[in-house]
Amino acid sequence: MFARDLKLARVPAHVGFIPDGNRRWAEARGHAKRCGYAAGIAPGLVLLDLCRALGVAEVTIYGFTKDNVRRPADQVDAFRDACVDFCGRAADAGYAVRVVGDAASAVFPSDLVHLASQRRAGDVRVNLLVNYGWQWDLRELERTGALASADVPRIDLVVRWGGRRRLSGFLPAQCAYADLFVVERLWPDMTAQDFVEALQWYQAQDVTLGG
Amino acid sequence: MFARDLKLARVPAHVGFIPDGNRRWAEARGHAKRCGYAAGIAPGLVLLDLCRALGVAEVTIYGFTKDNVRRPADQVDAFRDACVDFCGRAADAGYAVRVVGDAASAVFPSDLVHLASQRRAGDVRVNLLVNYGWQWDLRELERTGALASADVPRIDLVVRWGGRRRLSGFLPAQCAYADLFVVERLWPDMTAQDFVEALQWYQAQDVTLGG
Repeated sequence: MFARDLKLARVPAHVGFIPDGNRRWAEARGHAKRCGYAAGIAPGLVLLDLCRALGVAEVTIYGFTKDNVRRPADQVDAFRDACVDFCGRAADAGYAVRVVGDAASAVFPSDLVHLASQRRAGDVRVNLLVNYGWQWDLRELERTGALASADVPRIDLVVRWGGRRRLSGFLPAQCAYADLFVVERLWPDMTAQDFVEALQWYQAQDVTLGG
Repeated sequence: MFARDLKLARVPAHVGFIPDGNRRWAEARGHAKRCGYAAGIAPGLVLLDLCRALGVAEVTIYGFTKDNVRRPADQVDAFRDACVDFCGRAADAGYAVRVVGDAASAVFPSDLVHLASQRRAGDVRVNLLVNYGWQWDLRELERTGALASADVPRIDLVVRWGGRRRLSGFLPAQCAYADLFVVERLWPDMTAQDFVEALQWYQAQDVTLGG
């Protein structure tokens, strides 16, 4: 699937994804909440392949936050594992993976520490937020003069699954001008059509950058 | 109209309003774009009265930004005048008005300088963003250890008129967890029902603060 087949005149340079609804999805199927995270890995890889095919140059995905790690330990283990697995598979598929988050914390997966300081070589820049916190990000600005997420540029379009219409602390500086498209479907049920609809909607949005 | 008449179990403590669409409204009526701003004053006062009646404790309204002042001079004059007029009428109506923005700039209305450093006494806290910029806000954090908007607390619900689904630089730190409700209608055509619908939608949103 290519941008020209979809008649997309404007392809966003940088898209943010908020893959919400893993726990609701698991509960609706009678599973423990923790089981929802593993079901979210494959959809993420599908989305990366779509972005590559469409010519999106950079993708940033909400993995988990410093707020999220206050959840029950079995859930925390499950979303940490899912992030590690996702990064490995995205790297294997040739994506330029980078992790952004507080790697100094014990909850940060040790398997991802090397990706917190250096981007893997590859062809679409993929940033995964792991143990990220917007307060942590701003505190670094205050302390050092640069956001902790300074390596992540402005985001044009944010697509959120799971029906909530909010950013939930997702890179507030980079999303200052971002258009927000909300998909009702829960993340593990994501379809390629969801992203196509987001892109089609995005065609009609004017880009003013606040002007 | 009271919260109990509307069966609102949850009234947001702090609501943000993005009154967009003044220029489109004026153009659709064959007027110059600048004429749209004066038409936005009365709807703002209606909204404040609604918030007072419903028990909303604090309101923050997007006046104009440091990005906006790059527009043609007649438009800049028009939205500056509209902000001055709105503040005067809100103060006359007994609201605790405060202005948040870069008052050191020549484009900042001199009539509002006193409200940039001190809140008027009154009963609903009303913050109007005047010559505000999110980069300016964050730069103050970097420079002084506190956001320039530090007097404005967390926002629960943002209601935006004019159909755009984005924050456009509206207080990124305070809106990190805010729910965003978008009204298609252009701001000068605002109706009380728009806000009632936003509040009814808000009833069904869970407040997790990122957890």
